[in-house]
Amino acid sequence: MRGVIMHAPGDVRIEERDHPQIIDPTDAVIRIVAACVCGSDLWPYRGADTPDAKLMGHEYVGVVEEIGEEVSTLSVGDFVVGSFVISDNTCPICTAGYQSRCVNGIFVDGAIGTQAEYARIPHADGTLVATPGQPDDDLIPSLLAASDVLGTGWFAADAAEVGPGSSVAVIGDGAVGLMGVLAARQMGAETIIAMSRHEDRQRLAREFGATHIVADRGDAGVAAIKELTDGFGVDSAIEAVGTQESMMQAIRATRPGGHIGYVGVSHDVALPGDELFFGLVHLHGGPAPVRRYLPELIDLIWTRTIDPGRVFDMRLPLDEAAEAYAAMDERRAIKVLLTP
Amino acid sequence: MRGVIMHAPGDVRIEERDHPQIIDPTDAVIRIVAACVCGSDLWPYRGADTPDAKLMGHEYVGVVEEIGEEVSTLSVGDFVVGSFVISDNTCPICTAGYQSRCVNGIFVDGAIGTQAEYARIPHADGTLVATPGQPDDDLIPSLLAASDVLGTGWFAADAAEVGPGSSVAVIGDGAVGLMGVLAARQMGAETIIAMSRHEDRQRLAREFGATHIVADRGDAGVAAIKELTDGFGVDSAIEAVGTQESMMQAIRATRPGGHIGYVGVSHDVALPGDELFFGLVHLHGGPAPVRRYLPELIDLIWTRTIDPGRVFDMRLPLDEAAEAYAAMDERRAIKVLLTP
Repeated sequence: MRGVIMHAPGDVRIEERDHPQIIDPTDAVIRIVAACVCGSDLWPYRGADTPDAKLMGHEYVGVVEEIGEEVSTLSVGDFVVGSFVISDNTCPICTAGYQSRCVNGIFVDGAIGTQAEYARIPHADGTLVATPGQPDDDLIPSLLAASDVLGTGWFAADAAEVGPGSSVAVIGDGAVGLMGVLAARQMGAETIIAMSRHEDRQRLAREFGATHIVADRGDAGVAAIKELTDGFGVDSAIEAVGTQESMMQAIRATRPGGHIGYVGVSHDVALPGDELFFGLVHLHGGPAPVRRYLPELIDLIWTRTIDPGRVFDMRLPLDEAAEAYAAMDERRAIKVLLTP
Repeated sequence: MRGVIMHAPGDVRIEERDHPQIIDPTDAVIRIVAACVCGSDLWPYRGADTPDAKLMGHEYVGVVEEIGEEVSTLSVGDFVVGSFVISDNTCPICTAGYQSRCVNGIFVDGAIGTQAEYARIPHADGTLVATPGQPDDDLIPSLLAASDVLGTGWFAADAAEVGPGSSVAVIGDGAVGLMGVLAARQMGAETIIAMSRHEDRQRLAREFGATHIVADRGDAGVAAIKELTDGFGVDSAIEAVGTQESMMQAIRATRPGGHIGYVGVSHDVALPGDELFFGLVHLHGGPAPVRRYLPELIDLIWTRTIDPGRVFDMRLPLDEAAEAYAAMDERRAIKVLLTP
């Protein structure tokens, strides 16, 4: 089968790989129906991490082809959505809702790589959730979004304790930030401030529920947020970038006692203790436990309550994965859907 | 009147200062009945901050001597406990429970200095809480503890979301850490691990409710905590030191999804973003909003449900403040009560 391998920064290739097989009785093999490129894939693409023949892709929806004999919640033919971290969903960490740190957890990225035709999913019962039936084609992008960007934006909003009437700042206008806007709206936020400098993303942010757009960054961005919140700062900030600047923006834009949900994969960040201390904010974040939210998100998508799939603004065949990476790297696309 | 002034690291003197007067109609002037030296007073004493004729002391209980014409909840003669931050208790930040970041907030330390015979307390209604009557002498140390160390330890346990059945690690065996032990016990924690190398503090920690003592620090300390918690780490960590080592100890000892309440005044701390990110912990802390907890804490003390005053293991007249600082600096005392 074909799959995407990154050999070095910028060097993305489609190559022939072994067809996955059931190894453990808790495995499933799925045929990938749709995958995509993640903002986090751009870190190695741009050289911030050092890929070495890395199996790429960790977002996926597909159809179950084969199951191991201990798999009990899935059947061959089921349409499934999976999380970007394999989880048994039974260990104490999973049952506390932190499946992305499952004691048997495996990051799909690198270990499995779902920018491919097929994938072996260990702990299938704990990782995959079947949809109520075969989805209409137009639902597939939204279901695919649930696999990571929607689940991650949702977790960020949840970690930031967004609720009815909240004021929320969303830092980062990539797909996860935009999903954070959607999540905040769905959770009842009253004021949703999207930080964005790009017109296409600003427009999408407004469609997903942003009430205000702030193009300024740094001190000016913080000042703009404070002006929109009676000088106090927001109740909740969603951080979806992962840099020192974006984290400090989130911390400084949040009122004392407010909450920050951070999901941008952290790169070269060192948070100054004194600012955190006197800021009196709450911080929570990390790799989103998407599996916790999948049943709820699938339901919201299935009933057409939310339409996160609009975040995909380009669609390419898997064979053109290199172009998908380039388009996202050059910001010609927000997020690219790949079909094997 | 006499009051303590720190002129330089290690240079603590009792000097004659002006008798405080009512300035604003929301002021009260109180006669200090008891004050004390705080662990945080040792930062400037040891030269980590640079004191310059600094008015020392921010913990206090006393009797109202005079009130401004707008003070409505207090009467002359009331016995009162105050927070170490002046707060109006009416602004949006206060009403959200973060009185230590009141928009009209003033740190008592430096600006007022309650290691003295009298003090002017601005925003008296929002800062001071009267006890139900004149306290018995033996309750005074406990009421004084509520003013900061108990309130701060209590906030740390609350910020760390300690609840019935929790496992808790307490990092720091100073007065605040010991109060964190007491708070965790009161909130129903099942496992309370006190990190301490000093026999007198270990004993007091056990009296306050610690179920385990860990003398190791750093990686060995984290390993010891994990061994006591099935390898997962604690549900909640209370950080009561303020150094890089203590913060990392708290972060590393907490299970994914767990909560850290940090109240040690932060000095030269830079938290690595990647460890925070992949740790998936919750962080909350800063200057404790003691005013939020004062009514509840006074009630628990008044009904003799808790006895936090045991944390004072030395008592000196105000005139011997220099010796009080030296005793705490040299760890000859955990906490020294000063009587004017």
